[in-house]
Amino acid sequence: MISKNILLQFNNKNKTNFSNRGMNLENDINLANEYYRINDIAYIYKKPTPIKLVDVDYKLGKIKEAYFKTPSTTDYNGIYNGKYVDFEAKETNSKTSFALSNIHKHQIDHLINVSNKGAISFIIVRFNKLNENYFLSTENLKEFIKNNKRKSIPIDFFRRYGTMIKIKYSPRIDYIEVINNLYFGGNKS
Amino acid sequence: MISKNILLQFNNKNKTNFSNRGMNLENDINLANEYYRINDIAYIYKKPTPIKLVDVDYKLGKIKEAYFKTPSTTDYNGIYNGKYVDFEAKETNSKTSFALSNIHKHQIDHLINVSNKGAISFIIVRFNKLNENYFLSTENLKEFIKNNKRKSIPIDFFRRYGTMIKIKYSPRIDYIEVINNLYFGGNKS
Repeated sequence: MISKNILLQFNNKNKTNFSNRGMNLENDINLANEYYRINDIAYIYKKPTPIKLVDVDYKLGKIKEAYFKTPSTTDYNGIYNGKYVDFEAKETNSKTSFALSNIHKHQIDHLINVSNKGAISFIIVRFNKLNENYFLSTENLKEFIKNNKRKSIPIDFFRRYGTMIKIKYSPRIDYIEVINNLYFGGNKS
Repeated sequence: MISKNILLQFNNKNKTNFSNRGMNLENDINLANEYYRINDIAYIYKKPTPIKLVDVDYKLGKIKEAYFKTPSTTDYNGIYNGKYVDFEAKETNSKTSFALSNIHKHQIDHLINVSNKGAISFIIVRFNKLNENYFLSTENLKEFIKNNKRKSIPIDFFRRYGTMIKIKYSPRIDYIEVINNLYFGGNKS
């Protein structure tokens, strides 16, 4: 029931929130999504973390015992310009590569499944120590997995096949701009 | 932090699960979604219930105190046939109407927002005591709200403007069949 990977992610998130308040990738994406909603550009939300309830006081609405579950899908999905959008966002402290173990196998399967159905699906990876953010489409992710036995994607692969997301003022992580350039010929909706 | 409406829903869900195992609307929809995924028809998931964490033992991955939050979006979303699909599902024990108070105002706003962006969005309402299930598009829901001061939608409105979802063997609630008829001219993908 308790996944070590999930625990690690929660621990890391907690630490990041304290040491680097408002600057971690998840916060940047949540703020971008809020910006898109306020400006009626896109409706993309972070999914709540799935929880296994064990002991609940329904009278008080209080959860007294519960555990984190492994998510079966990605963290973010929604709609932009008539298209279903679905992605996962991860940070890494490595300067040279992104370990595929950061993404669950069923999350990769999910990205591929929705991509096959016509979704705009991708991953966003932040290299913390390089201060670089990349957008990598599921197609490119799939290609890498197909052609490589390596368990991590070298940064050069992101630089060559991905798109760097430059940090802007507002929103800091404007991934919809990348989607516009890649899927809509640079036209804003 | 604790919404009475949410508590009520959780209480009801709990009771339904015990008294009517495997037969409530949420279960039927979850099973339909599983059927669609297994058969590579659609990838639609129920979103986890949002939780406000108060006390967590990250070492054990154990949540020791948390509360239910009001969801900001609908329960279900995903992709079918290249289209973003988004909906809310509710049961009512009334034989004559569906009280709009069952759906949060921001959930209705969300349905309208995504519909304006090109989503296939709708509500599914089960009239428990009539054993009738209806699919009502956001367009029709919006029309009703615009033209009526009533706080509940009479069953006749569902019968006239909605589509009855007949109970089948598998999946019991085949709402994709309704989507096919309404949005794709009856052609299966």
